[in-house]
Amino acid sequence: MRTLTIVSERHTYPVIVGAGALSRLPGVLDEAGLGGRHIAIVTDDTVRKQPIAEELVTALEQGSFTYSFIEIPAGDAHKSLDTAVSVYGELLAIGFRRSDVIVALGGGVVGDLAGFVAATYMRGVPFIQAPTTLLAHDSALGGKVGVNLPQGKNLVGAFYPPKAVVFDTRALLSLPQRQWVNGMAEVIKHALIGDADLFATLEAQPLRQCPDAAVLEPILADAMQVKVNIVNADEHETGLRQILNVGHTIGHAVEQCSDYELGHGEAIAIGLVLEADLAVMRGMLTMEARDRLVQLLLAHGLPIRPQERDFAEIAKRIQVDKKHGRRGWTFALPQAIGRVEVVSGVEEDEVRRVYQRALEGESA
Amino acid sequence: MRTLTIVSERHTYPVIVGAGALSRLPGVLDEAGLGGRHIAIVTDDTVRKQPIAEELVTALEQGSFTYSFIEIPAGDAHKSLDTAVSVYGELLAIGFRRSDVIVALGGGVVGDLAGFVAATYMRGVPFIQAPTTLLAHDSALGGKVGVNLPQGKNLVGAFYPPKAVVFDTRALLSLPQRQWVNGMAEVIKHALIGDADLFATLEAQPLRQCPDAAVLEPILADAMQVKVNIVNADEHETGLRQILNVGHTIGHAVEQCSDYELGHGEAIAIGLVLEADLAVMRGMLTMEARDRLVQLLLAHGLPIRPQERDFAEIAKRIQVDKKHGRRGWTFALPQAIGRVEVVSGVEEDEVRRVYQRALEGESA
Ligand SMILES: NC(=O)c1ccc[n+]([C@@H]2O[C@H](COP(=O)([O-])OP(=O)(O)OC[C@H]3O[C@@H](n4cnc5c(N)ncnc54)[C@H](O)[C@@H]3O)[C@@H](O)[C@H]2O)c1
Ligand SMILES: NC(=O)c1ccc[n+]([C@@H]2O[C@H](COP(=O)([O-])OP(=O)(O)OC[C@H]3O[C@@H](n4cnc5c(N)ncnc54)[C@H](O)[C@@H]3O)[C@@H](O)[C@H]2O)c1
Ligand SMILES: [Zn+2]
Ligand SMILES: [Zn+2]
Repeated sequence: MRTLTIVSERHTYPVIVGAGALSRLPGVLDEAGLGGRHIAIVTDDTVRKQPIAEELVTALEQGSFTYSFIEIPAGDAHKSLDTAVSVYGELLAIGFRRSDVIVALGGGVVGDLAGFVAATYMRGVPFIQAPTTLLAHDSALGGKVGVNLPQGKNLVGAFYPPKAVVFDTRALLSLPQRQWVNGMAEVIKHALIGDADLFATLEAQPLRQCPDAAVLEPILADAMQVKVNIVNADEHETGLRQILNVGHTIGHAVEQCSDYELGHGEAIAIGLVLEADLAVMRGMLTMEARDRLVQLLLAHGLPIRPQERDFAEIAKRIQVDKKHGRRGWTFALPQAIGRVEVVSGVEEDEVRRVYQRALEGESA
Repeated sequence: MRTLTIVSERHTYPVIVGAGALSRLPGVLDEAGLGGRHIAIVTDDTVRKQPIAEELVTALEQGSFTYSFIEIPAGDAHKSLDTAVSVYGELLAIGFRRSDVIVALGGGVVGDLAGFVAATYMRGVPFIQAPTTLLAHDSALGGKVGVNLPQGKNLVGAFYPPKAVVFDTRALLSLPQRQWVNGMAEVIKHALIGDADLFATLEAQPLRQCPDAAVLEPILADAMQVKVNIVNADEHETGLRQILNVGHTIGHAVEQCSDYELGHGEAIAIGLVLEADLAVMRGMLTMEARDRLVQLLLAHGLPIRPQERDFAEIAKRIQVDKKHGRRGWTFALPQAIGRVEVVSGVEEDEVRRVYQRALEGESA
């Protein structure tokens, strides 16, 4: 079991990672001053059926907490204000009060949605992130919560820190293989951003599927530590935190162009490679480092080449992405394995060149 | 012109009160680091037609700010998630970015709704409160923003401080008389909570309608200072801030029982008297102080007696009010003119006695 610490403007809270972490939940609640409160477990209809849901129930019962389940339908399409409204309604129906606690048990969809409900129900109630997907090692950290609008993803939300993140890695045993692989893209992203040792560890032993707890725990905790360090330095994304977007500027566009046929991690893998190509072309990154990244992604069964043939489609989507300033494009680009930097004023033409070469199967 | 200061966890910001305050807006925006941003003015279709809307336009044009109007229908029924969704849509349609600024020009409905949109659009954008009703001298202070649900008022929201509050009292010149009187109930509430001198000033010269700026400005600024002091001490309502609920525990129930025939201030006036009666019965408040309160409310044309004959209807609504703990009822009760205290463990029976006597036309 590893414990990391997030220092938010509002409060400092623990991040507990390991097999069996949920059994610590009653103690975590007590330490956060939330002993004896009623617990509303928000989860989706898939996670509800997994063994991890029973582990949570067992832990709460051992701590003599009362609880209710609130189920939402699985899938990003349900990360919406409509779903939030139905959760508000269920909270009201069970007489949930400002002092009670929401536990978000699920992947990024449940975490984002339940976190948004927690941030806004009666102007904010305490909540706990209990992630159950590998991708959620990313989404459950840093306090970003929110929902999608028909016009685009994550357009409505807040920065609202949980009282704790309790990541019981036993949840990952029931995770479908494709979810695993997609999550690994973000683990690799974290290694690329801030942990060259972790990168090397993954090179030595790629995790094509969920390994034993003894192998998984240090790797996951290290990846999470990278993100924790960054959000501790820039909670509200006024600067540094933008480096977490590496792979995402092109990745999001690629994801959208695929009509979400590509999983998020798969799109990010493609984005990471294209952005590494861009960094190489700009003389920021060595070809050798870029090739290591490509090899590591391939070793995890992740794609590295875009499918969309028309760069204009990609450019259009980069253009409207909220992360861009009024002049040129801003990218988080790798400088080395373990180091990423924010670069602004990138021209559409540079990206086009890199993209076209990738289509032709060449590297930078 | 008077300037008060609010110290929020997130940032410190000015509250500017006076005739012509809006002409300072460009300077305020510059000082808040918001120079040159696009301004989305959220207002309602009634306020849009008042001279104050043109004053705002003039000020922005003099400061060379670009702006767009986003109009919502007037009335508390439109303080809803549906209206928020339409405002999100209009912001997206005009290409509003995270760095642009929302100005909420209107009463409490516009302030609460536009503030909620500001708190949640792309996880939070800067906003300015520009109140135009007397009641909004209360609602625009303290950072509470939110919307109603079909199940109840203000059930969804956040604590989200504006970058400034700019209260141009010229707005009040077009305010309908009944809105004025309702707003005075909250001015009297603030005097009762924390400013015995202000209370005496109002006794000497009741403000049955909007007076000259020279008279209005100090009174309004003093009333606002009471609230500012309290929210500065307890931004997130973990304790002290509950004293601002004086009159509201019974007042809300009375308001609901009237099916909102009573204006909010009218209901609060009745609530203030009943809660003063309760305080007298508990030996906390002198009869003389209670009578002064009654006289001041009457002098402003405010009602002091409930209409609902059935106390059970009132009790039911106090019961579900979110401000109550699990045992007994919690009230903010006056101890003297200028002092209010939070008291818990109030029995339903005590409230019933006070209520019945009021129905019979007796005082405590
Ligand atoms: N808040 C942030 O900072 C942040 C960061 C990255 C991504 N996100 C968001 O995260 C979401 C994607 O997260 P995700 O990939 O975890 O999606 P998800 O929550 O939809 O989970 C993926 C699928 O796996 C199922 N599942 C979850 N846990 C399981 C388990 N233990 N066993 C079996 N099945 C399980 C779910 O029911 C779902 O069908 C997106 O909405 C994205 O916007 C948020
Ligand atoms: N956030 C808080 O702390 C807080 C505190 C108290 C009340 N509130 C909220 O405030 C709302 C009530 O505020 P309100 O009474 O200002 O309501 P409001 O915003 O509905 O305004 C009342 C009416 O006056 C009109 N109006 C506004 N300014 C005008 C002007 N200058 N000239 C002519 N007409 C004008 C409006 O169009 C509306 O029809 C409620 O929703 C309540 O929940 C919030
Ligand atoms: Zn991602
Ligand atoms: Zn009020």
